Amino acid sequence: MQLTALEKQLSFLREIDRLKTVIRQSPLLDQSRRENSAEHSWHLAMYALILSEHARGPVNTNRVIQMLLLHDVVEIDVGDFPIHGGSSSELQAEQESRAAARLFGLLPEPQRKEFLSLWQEFEHAETEDAKFAKALDRFQPLLINIFTGGGTWTENGVSLEQVFSRYGPVIKRGAPELWAVCERWVSQHFSGQAAGIPKQAD
Amino acid sequence: MQLTALEKQLSFLREIDRLKTVIRQSPLLDQSRRENSAEHSWHLAMYALILSEHARGPVNTNRVIQMLLLHDVVEIDVGDFPIHGGSSSELQAEQESRAAARLFGLLPEPQRKEFLSLWQEFEHAETEDAKFAKALDRFQPLLINIFTGGGTWTENGVSLEQVFSRYGPVIKRGAPELWAVCERWVSQHFSGQAAGIPKQAD
Ligand SMILES: [Ca+2]
Repeated sequence: MQLTALEKQLSFLREIDRLKTVIRQSPLLDQSRRENSAEHSWHLAMYALILSEHARGPVNTNRVIQMLLLHDVVEIDVGDFPIHGGSSSELQAEQESRAAARLFGLLPEPQRKEFLSLWQEFEHAETEDAKFAKALDRFQPLLINIFTGGGTWTENGVSLEQVFSRYGPVIKRGAPELWAVCERWVSQHFSGQAAGIPKQAD
Repeated sequence: MQLTALEKQLSFLREIDRLKTVIRQSPLLDQSRRENSAEHSWHLAMYALILSEHARGPVNTNRVIQMLLLHDVVEIDVGDFPIHGGSSSELQAEQESRAAARLFGLLPEPQRKEFLSLWQEFEHAETEDAKFAKALDRFQPLLINIFTGGGTWTENGVSLEQVFSRYGPVIKRGAPELWAVCERWVSQHFSGQAAGIPKQAD
């Protein structure tokens, strides 16, 4: 049967509900459970809304927000590939492209084309908007590790050098001011000092 | 101690992590658990991104997205007030205002002022952007109930008339085309017929 444009849009919105069941490595800050990719995407969109003045280049905040809202929907089909997992990135890229084609293919034109291309722009990380979006996508889990006193670094036995090499280039490329803060906090953390922002009294 | 502007921004982003622990009445579509307010906010932002052509008035999609991203942060302090809860809305409004002042008050100026006023605009529901955002905030839980064959309506013994009066005016005011679909599906649901979009074969 033929779906109307609105029915196609609602099918897509129904399908992406499943992103709420994709579980990431990072915990919530209260460490009660691991974060899922839908709430992670919300948090990243808030990071973009609040932090875009710290982007390296001139960015369009609203495009960055849109990119971050949809950057992870492919995980519905392929799951989350953890930063410290060491998986093959070529296989991953191929699986994710197939997932993007299927998921955005639920939408009517011109939305299918538009959002698929926004997702590809994020993946290629060449425009200023995409570089900043990618930087935030690395910055947020790094902050979680700082704010939880080690988090997935402790769990995976990750060293200072590994943190610098796995997070540094991407964050620095899109948001050097944010990387400067990270460098200080990461060094403090690995030398056993308290790192991060002191909590204000309530 | 004095925090820098960036430290204030990061304090805010750390604090709102707690929205991931605020639990709503509505279930996920797979009914494995209830939805939290952070992933709900992500889903609503996606609704705005995909459905803005169905708004009654001319809307700025990106402002609607921003509004929906932050509309629920006050629940960190006051919790979620369910649609079918029958709580006093004056008390609720006062508590939410205090929460907004505290939370957005973590941000440096001019962001504090800017996001507080965006949140107030949503609450007052008088601009076209806010009316559409409010309509989506009602439409999404209604769809969950349709897609789960009853959901919170069954749980709370809610009648067809109550659905029409609790969801209808807000959805119709901001997105009459979406309400037209709802009316048909709600009537089908309460007359025992299968309602909603048929799932396409995988
Ligand atoms: Ca809401």
